[in-house]
Amino acid sequence: MERLNDAQARALLLKKPVLLLPIGAVEAHGDHLPAGTDNYLARRLAATLVERIAGATPVMLLPLLPFGQVWSLSDAPGSFSISNETVSRTVSEIGLSMLEKGLSSLAVINAHYGNVTALREAQRQLKDKGVTVAIFNYPGAAEPTKTVRERPAAHPSYMHACEIETSYMLHLAPELVRMDEAIVNYPDFPADFGEVAYRWSEFSASPVLGDATAATGEKGRIILDAVINRMAELVADLYSRQSGSRSIGETSP
Amino acid sequence: MERLNDAQARALLLKKPVLLLPIGAVEAHGDHLPAGTDNYLARRLAATLVERIAGATPVMLLPLLPFGQVWSLSDAPGSFSISNETVSRTVSEIGLSMLEKGLSSLAVINAHYGNVTALREAQRQLKDKGVTVAIFNYPGAAEPTKTVRERPAAHPSYMHACEIETSYMLHLAPELVRMDEAIVNYPDFPADFGEVAYRWSEFSASPVLGDATAATGEKGRIILDAVINRMAELVADLYSRQSGSRSIGETSP
Amino acid sequence: MERLNDAQARALLLKKPVLLLPIGAVEAHGDHLPAGTDNYLARRLAATLVERIAGATPVMLLPLLPFGQVWSLSDAPGSFSISNETVSRTVSEIGLSMLEKGLSSLAVINAHYGNVTALREAQRQLKDKGVTVAIFNYPGAAEPTKTVRERPAAHPSYMHACEIETSYMLHLAPELVRMDEAIVNYPDFPADFGEVAYRWSEFSASPVLGDATAATGEKGRIILDAVINRMAELVADLYSRQSGSRSIGETSP
Amino acid sequence: MERLNDAQARALLLKKPVLLLPIGAVEAHGDHLPAGTDNYLARRLAATLVERIAGATPVMLLPLLPFGQVWSLSDAPGSFSISNETVSRTVSEIGLSMLEKGLSSLAVINAHYGNVTALREAQRQLKDKGVTVAIFNYPGAAEPTKTVRERPAAHPSYMHACEIETSYMLHLAPELVRMDEAIVNYPDFPADFGEVAYRWSEFSASPVLGDATAATGEKGRIILDAVINRMAELVADLYSRQSGSRSIGETSP
Amino acid sequence: MERLNDAQARALLLKKPVLLLPIGAVEAHGDHLPAGTDNYLARRLAATLVERIAGATPVMLLPLLPFGQVWSLSDAPGSFSISNETVSRTVSEIGLSMLEKGLSSLAVINAHYGNVTALREAQRQLKDKGVTVAIFNYPGAAEPTKTVRERPAAHPSYMHACEIETSYMLHLAPELVRMDEAIVNYPDFPADFGEVAYRWSEFSASPVLGDATAATGEKGRIILDAVINRMAELVADLYSRQSGSRSIGETSP
Amino acid sequence: MERLNDAQARALLLKKPVLLLPIGAVEAHGDHLPAGTDNYLARRLAATLVERIAGATPVMLLPLLPFGQVWSLSDAPGSFSISNETVSRTVSEIGLSMLEKGLSSLAVINAHYGNVTALREAQRQLKDKGVTVAIFNYPGAAEPTKTVRERPAAHPSYMHACEIETSYMLHLAPELVRMDEAIVNYPDFPADFGEVAYRWSEFSASPVLGDATAATGEKGRIILDAVINRMAELVADLYSRQSGSRSIGETSP
Repeated sequence: MERLNDAQARALLLKKPVLLLPIGAVEAHGDHLPAGTDNYLARRLAATLVERIAGATPVMLLPLLPFGQVWSLSDAPGSFSISNETVSRTVSEIGLSMLEKGLSSLAVINAHYGNVTALREAQRQLKDKGVTVAIFNYPGAAEPTKTVRERPAAHPSYMHACEIETSYMLHLAPELVRMDEAIVNYPDFPADFGEVAYRWSEFSASPVLGDATAATGEKGRIILDAVINRMAELVADLYSRQSGSRSIGETSP
Repeated sequence: MERLNDAQARALLLKKPVLLLPIGAVEAHGDHLPAGTDNYLARRLAATLVERIAGATPVMLLPLLPFGQVWSLSDAPGSFSISNETVSRTVSEIGLSMLEKGLSSLAVINAHYGNVTALREAQRQLKDKGVTVAIFNYPGAAEPTKTVRERPAAHPSYMHACEIETSYMLHLAPELVRMDEAIVNYPDFPADFGEVAYRWSEFSASPVLGDATAATGEKGRIILDAVINRMAELVADLYSRQSGSRSIGETSP
Repeated sequence: MERLNDAQARALLLKKPVLLLPIGAVEAHGDHLPAGTDNYLARRLAATLVERIAGATPVMLLPLLPFGQVWSLSDAPGSFSISNETVSRTVSEIGLSMLEKGLSSLAVINAHYGNVTALREAQRQLKDKGVTVAIFNYPGAAEPTKTVRERPAAHPSYMHACEIETSYMLHLAPELVRMDEAIVNYPDFPADFGEVAYRWSEFSASPVLGDATAATGEKGRIILDAVINRMAELVADLYSRQSGSRSIGETSP
Repeated sequence: MERLNDAQARALLLKKPVLLLPIGAVEAHGDHLPAGTDNYLARRLAATLVERIAGATPVMLLPLLPFGQVWSLSDAPGSFSISNETVSRTVSEIGLSMLEKGLSSLAVINAHYGNVTALREAQRQLKDKGVTVAIFNYPGAAEPTKTVRERPAAHPSYMHACEIETSYMLHLAPELVRMDEAIVNYPDFPADFGEVAYRWSEFSASPVLGDATAATGEKGRIILDAVINRMAELVADLYSRQSGSRSIGETSP
Repeated sequence: MERLNDAQARALLLKKPVLLLPIGAVEAHGDHLPAGTDNYLARRLAATLVERIAGATPVMLLPLLPFGQVWSLSDAPGSFSISNETVSRTVSEIGLSMLEKGLSSLAVINAHYGNVTALREAQRQLKDKGVTVAIFNYPGAAEPTKTVRERPAAHPSYMHACEIETSYMLHLAPELVRMDEAIVNYPDFPADFGEVAYRWSEFSASPVLGDATAATGEKGRIILDAVINRMAELVADLYSRQSGSRSIGETSP
Repeated sequence: MERLNDAQARALLLKKPVLLLPIGAVEAHGDHLPAGTDNYLARRLAATLVERIAGATPVMLLPLLPFGQVWSLSDAPGSFSISNETVSRTVSEIGLSMLEKGLSSLAVINAHYGNVTALREAQRQLKDKGVTVAIFNYPGAAEPTKTVRERPAAHPSYMHACEIETSYMLHLAPELVRMDEAIVNYPDFPADFGEVAYRWSEFSASPVLGDATAATGEKGRIILDAVINRMAELVADLYSRQSGSRSIGETSP
């Protein structure tokens, strides 16, 4: 979108493209990954996706939202956090802006788990106004992750700067990874971690959760190829829905 | 900031750097400039500034906020607008996040005039909480603009995609400019344009205001060199203020 | 709390009790369970917990919040929904009210999964003001559920009016269950259910997700005994933290 | 409502019932009445009303909202207060939820005077959206109160835990009243009580206003019988209005 | 205040004056009174009060807030209404502005009953921040009104453009009253007027409630003399409280 | 408006008048002008305008909004400030109230520059709802100001209590000006005044900006005659637009 002139934008709008909105965060990721890790991942995943579906499905790529909700690590030196409400308002207003142009399908390519709450709030509000929002949190990653993973996850629900995320970066942004600084960190989570709110600094000296040393670019490639495939299918579904030929979810496996 | 790991971020924070936050917009700029013009300008101005003051003044560069308030052109195909309140909340919350880290000086490098109202609101709120915000709307541009300008401005208060802004792009992002599509457009502003709110589409077929064909990279270079100089001085002032050695504005010419 | 007179309330406050706040929802649960299912479960779990820890840990039981966020089933005849923001404000304000009385530990006994987002928002806000909030979503239920479950779950993340929840009701409120109306319902979830927001009526004729006919009171008893045990431990931890003798999570298994 | 399954709820909705919503508060009421006094009164008044009009007028009884705005006594040990805005939002959102189901008449059975401001705000907002809200603050109580009252009121506008309210409790919840703890308390109201905002603790050692020792169950019965009668009439009116046969207030005396 | 220069304002602030803020409304008052009736009354009452206490109690008179909440008559041609929340925010912010100047006593001279809800909200918020707000709704009027009244009130709680209010205008702003247009209007209030929200146009052809023809300037003088006396006492109390010599309400009868 | 009875208001509404809303501020203006300067100017400009167009263009004059946003001078003894948001809400709600009466043109006569941000926000919101708002900040003043000005302005963008504004007061409210207290004050603005937010007390001992001693009533008359002429034209345009005979701005020079 940032590169289109008015004539091009007008021509593309006539095709009723699916809008793609990448979102990341500025958040501490230890000493082997940069604070912009989620932003690099969201940007490059989006770019890869656009390449992949070029010609097949009309899409319009918006610029990255680079700030997210980073409550759990907000006290780390590399984190700048904004609130759920502000993330949600931003996405909602972009959705209303696209609705004025006759577009009704938005895919959010999210690389930061902390944004999910805000994105869901925007998603529901926009649904009631006629905009279908798909939130992509690495869709399709679950199966290949099981296959490639060599070291246990530090927590069943959270991953961060670990074997998997570091592998993503080794695949998509290897020039920004310093594997010589990668560490193994399995913190003792508080017994009531599931019930009480903790900033991670309360129980872990590092934001790394798991074994970053086990990361490889190949692992990243295997998972993210599956993710790109799945995103391409889902975007095609969104496009079909928008163009009225079928309802979403009907035919994809 | 996006490239720093935790150790680097921690080290930089100890120097009490001035935070730099570029902000632009996604907004129609005619057929010779892309919709991301303000984003390219903000990003590259910020990068040039950082290079310029490297070593002299400690700064921390945040990623670009790519959506702005684009009310006047919100109905153009290339525009996606968010509200003043959302822009203002985002900047305020980034300011509060930095305050937790002991930083109190923020320079916003703004390339989109429509953001000024929201930025001023955030600026005043943050001042009362202890954060000094400097808003840079091409500071120092007025004098050199008078010197290089060959064609009249379309309006005393507004410029857009014109001789001047196109010259900025020819200097900072020439690969994105199509001078063969540049036009001359002097719309008849409504007699009550200063009193009544108009979207520009109500009186102009194009978002270009003025003579884009008169733009040259050299004009852009002359003005933006002055802008970079002035921004460097102002950032040095902010740094001095933050480090306590003198109060802002005291010694700069 | 509802039964205490002023002298009793004053005496109890001196012991720095943990506050217990049950919350449920008014939500369709099919024809074998009442719309108030989540409210009955939250009320009776809370009452059982209070009995269990009577004498051991000082607690103060607040009345049930009977309305929750029921977006997914809001169009069902038996559902009355309020927004995340209103749920969150209510809990935050109760937290501020208790803080004025010198209390800083609140355990929310939540029987409706849709409330979690709102409760986490309140939890984080209150943490920054000095109130520790523990959110109990059937803590300790995971292991015994695996043991007693005979029929598959309809979805890895959602359960509703199914073998398990119906078992809870058969144990805690058998007089309200009509097993002759219990059904088996394994809807085809849309392929993009994880990414796109659906109201359940878009893909399922009944709000039942799974096999309600497999429910027994004994299954409910086994799981909820474990839940009560775990809640009792967590409340004891909260009490210890509040009374300053140790930090939360330190010693519980 | 809490006891209805989906089939029952669907059947009842077809009759266009009047929705009944009881609301109370958690508020200090001295040593002879519990902090949940207003909640017990609202719940039992609502239950008695439902019994009374069973068969005659279709109604749907929602669960009690147990927290109210208790500013005047918020610093008492037995009080937990939420804001006017939160009370108002809750009721407004319940009103919007019922509107989606085709219902447009809501009767709020309020036992706590402090809620009236918030209820009126919701009432006016809902009126403009098509929902008629009737607020019941013991309608019809004025005349019989004059008849049975033996001891003067402590203040022309406020009653609390006094001869009258205690009589209500002796009639509806005698098991919760300790008449041996009942007191006589006629505080000296500040001369500017009508103009300046006071928490009651600023001028009275007890939340009791008046002579609680004069209460009897019989007084409560006489007044509340009249209240139930009047509420039954008003609900019948609301039902008629909703079903379109006449406009509200037209025929009742 | 509007007439003071900076030196005078500074000198007056040193005396810690009580701030006086008149507030009215733009609201239909029938054909014998102007739509600005409440504004004229508030302005002239305030002016009379200032004259009365000149020399005795230091006060600072702010300009009139001329718009109020006029929901009940908002559909009348002579009414312009703003919301409770906006009225409340305005008064709260004026209160915070005075607090910065070291003032903590504000007397609001209110001539429009519909503003009371908003004023009470502001009053409570400001109390918790250290500003004492006294709301004057014709204090002291009750007794003399009983004495002079010849014709019954149309409703026990509401008076509007009637014998009494018209008498106020005949005393304070006789040039604006057209007694030849005064009418007698005793509408039939709906039976559920106390429970359901009505705009007055739903049951009355005129905004006059009662017998305006019975008004005389002498009746107005008698009541308003008492009101001015009472306001003078209350302002003196506020001043004493602010200057620390005694607590409010202690000594006035 | 304040002087109209209901019959008059109804008759005037039938002519679809343009609504006039004056707005000022309570703000320090030095020792030669009162704190209510902006209020006197707005009121009297509005009154003069009404006289001027009486008979020609139907207008309805609302009472003055006397409080504005005075951030820059909020710490001065003569200033009482409210927020941008409250100013904006007030104007928006008045706009919605007029819309209900079938009016869609509002001219705001603003005498305080600090209100412009809030007014523009309201203007844009109301435009999207069908109300055209014209904001008058001394329209037409630029040219005659150049002609009469004898002393330089203190700042290119700000004027306050200076040669020009004092001349306005000498023309419209000479009884409130003390020319013997007029001063000359050219403060040294901070070098970064355009980028950083300053309260004026940070760099100037007086709120006067420029040379107040050069003011004359004749200068005020010359400028304000032009202003009145221009406002009369603009109001006539608004009326034409509202009555549908032509679109705004079409024919005025």
